Amino acid sequence: MPSRQSSAPRYSVGQEVIFQAALECFYRHGYDGTSVRDIAKASGTTPAAMYHYYESKQDLLVDIIGRFMGQSIEVTSAAIGTENGPSAQLFAAARSHVLWNASDVVSSFVVNSEIRSLEPVNRRRVIAQRDKLQRMFDAVVEHGVAEAVFATPWPREASRAVVTMCTAVANWYKSSGELSPEEIADRYGAMALSLVGAREMNPM
Amino acid sequence: MPSRQSSAPRYSVGQEVIFQAALECFYRHGYDGTSVRDIAKASGTTPAAMYHYYESKQDLLVDIIGRFMGQSIEVTSAAIGTENGPSAQLFAAARSHVLWNASDVVSSFVVNSEIRSLEPVNRRRVIAQRDKLQRMFDAVVEHGVAEAVFATPWPREASRAVVTMCTAVANWYKSSGELSPEEIADRYGAMALSLVGAREMNPM
Repeated sequence: MPSRQSSAPRYSVGQEVIFQAALECFYRHGYDGTSVRDIAKASGTTPAAMYHYYESKQDLLVDIIGRFMGQSIEVTSAAIGTENGPSAQLFAAARSHVLWNASDVVSSFVVNSEIRSLEPVNRRRVIAQRDKLQRMFDAVVEHGVAEAVFATPWPREASRAVVTMCTAVANWYKSSGELSPEEIADRYGAMALSLVGAREMNPM
Repeated sequence: MPSRQSSAPRYSVGQEVIFQAALECFYRHGYDGTSVRDIAKASGTTPAAMYHYYESKQDLLVDIIGRFMGQSIEVTSAAIGTENGPSAQLFAAARSHVLWNASDVVSSFVVNSEIRSLEPVNRRRVIAQRDKLQRMFDAVVEHGVAEAVFATPWPREASRAVVTMCTAVANWYKSSGELSPEEIADRYGAMALSLVGAREMNPM
């Protein structure tokens, strides 16, 4: 399981309480359905406490989405960096992306549903992060195609399909389910290889 | 492109205006971020007009999600029903699911993000619809495995991955993109076959 705390900013207890309360509120009621007062109430503090750490509710959303996306990029980068060759790298990247999203379904949902609520300049920054993550998968798939170990005629579409099917695990994953996150992740790693038409199907 | 109106309920112009205004409001601001007054304003009517057609804002959300899910099931059923054999059926089902979601990215987003906002009895009904759609794909994949035309060792996970990657097209599809919806759908049909380890890769 990728470490949740790799490079999470080290917040004071007070800030982390507000961060988590806002995340929970956005998850349940959406960004526009949550007021600063709601966040204060959920965190057992006051609106003034939020304004001590954040300029605005928008600033809090930027922090929530930016933290998750930044860590997603790190987790994927680490997975790819520890393997050699496109098959092992794609398997590891898909696997770690599943584990990462399953480990925090609340953040995954808020990130994917509230990009709409970011102001244009913030939205552009997050979309650049999302593109960067996608490009890491793209590079592995394109490398595999160039080396003729992946047979897909559509590396870009295949790479996007891999990322979206792995991200979507957060939409249905239940810790009470039959399969452990590791078992699901192994299967998604193998399915990613199948999707790109990998010649060697078991890089483990 | 699957027909949008197959069995859509025939609403009066007045009801359809309110339906579409609510859909747009939920898409932009979420269910909890939208008031009955917002819907009235967006539709150029009054709250009383909404209450003429719907008992509540919840009733409107149920109608929006139920209509889209009901039509998703019909579109998939029709696609599978017009083909013979698991490969052609999976190709057609994936293809039509992509076209269906790309044809209405607004509804697709609202359906996937606002199941959380349904009251328990309504949520159970929608989850049953979602399960029914998934089972249609599952049956095709299991049939293919039983006939040894699909090699996947994990038919359930592969079937779910196919549905989620096709649904997710709505998250990134832009009508200004390089590929037409039909081209994207063809590629997803072929990628679905690749994902399940189909022996015959071109059912067209």
